[in-house]
Amino acid sequence: MKTLFITAIAYLALLTTSCIENKSENNKTELEAIFPKGELGAAENFTGNAWNTALVANDSTYNTVIGNVYFEPGARSNWHTHPSGQILIITDGVGYHQIKGQPRQTIKKGDVIKCPPNVLHWHGASPDTGLLQMYILPKTEKGIVQWLQPVTDEEYNSTIKK
Amino acid sequence: MKTLFITAIAYLALLTTSCIENKSENNKTELEAIFPKGELGAAENFTGNAWNTALVANDSTYNTVIGNVYFEPGARSNWHTHPSGQILIITDGVGYHQIKGQPRQTIKKGDVIKCPPNVLHWHGASPDTGLLQMYILPKTEKGIVQWLQPVTDEEYNSTIKK
Repeated sequence: MKTLFITAIAYLALLTTSCIENKSENNKTELEAIFPKGELGAAENFTGNAWNTALVANDSTYNTVIGNVYFEPGARSNWHTHPSGQILIITDGVGYHQIKGQPRQTIKKGDVIKCPPNVLHWHGASPDTGLLQMYILPKTEKGIVQWLQPVTDEEYNSTIKK
Repeated sequence: MKTLFITAIAYLALLTTSCIENKSENNKTELEAIFPKGELGAAENFTGNAWNTALVANDSTYNTVIGNVYFEPGARSNWHTHPSGQILIITDGVGYHQIKGQPRQTIKKGDVIKCPPNVLHWHGASPDTGLLQMYILPKTEKGIVQWLQPVTDEEYNSTIKK
């Protein structure tokens, strides 16, 4: 009986942990993840934690790079440009996208954002809710990305314009 | 001790049920849609109902077409080719992808599938569960798609090979 009890408690602990982890992930971010969380982005290119999962590597057949980024609440990229532009597809959460000289946009699940070639932009999560976004980089024969300066708190907190 | 044991078992049962219910919800009952259902695909190119939502239209800046298809259970495309190939990203559900001369693959949430240029393929849902998939067509300066014959029931029902 004692052995059975200990086994039951151990199993219970295991299940509880598993469920809480699931719940915690769902409740905290309230995001529906399609891909693994991925690898932490380089600190010199991001403010806060941005996790990247590579989905399609560059090659000469498709000349297209695709990946998924999970931005934790408050996290954002530095300003950067892409020589052939970038398409963002938001799969869950709430975040921001800004093209230099234009108002900051709020972006959310189902939105499709285009940033033209060699145009300065940044993207990231809102302060309270994370962001799950896929990125598509076309025409990679011209290059991938040029990283620039961090987005300041003042830029990040600028008035929301949709 | 006995009461504690019974309480533990009851709690265990509750947790187990909760986890299974969550799983059941995700896997079977409802697919997690990111985009609107879209417009019904042309009957001459599909068997069953396939709903298309255009996400990125063709242009000379990105030369990339992106969209989302919801295949109802049992629905599938005809055989077809793409002059620059196609990338499929499965966002929910279960389906099939087959390249001519190769075994049919089972595809599911999180899978990324590549079909090379001018290679004959088809894709669609499993008989019991629908499929939500995004498609990315690169290098559209070479064209978009060439539609061919329907996938026969024999081809559709061929042995599952993952």
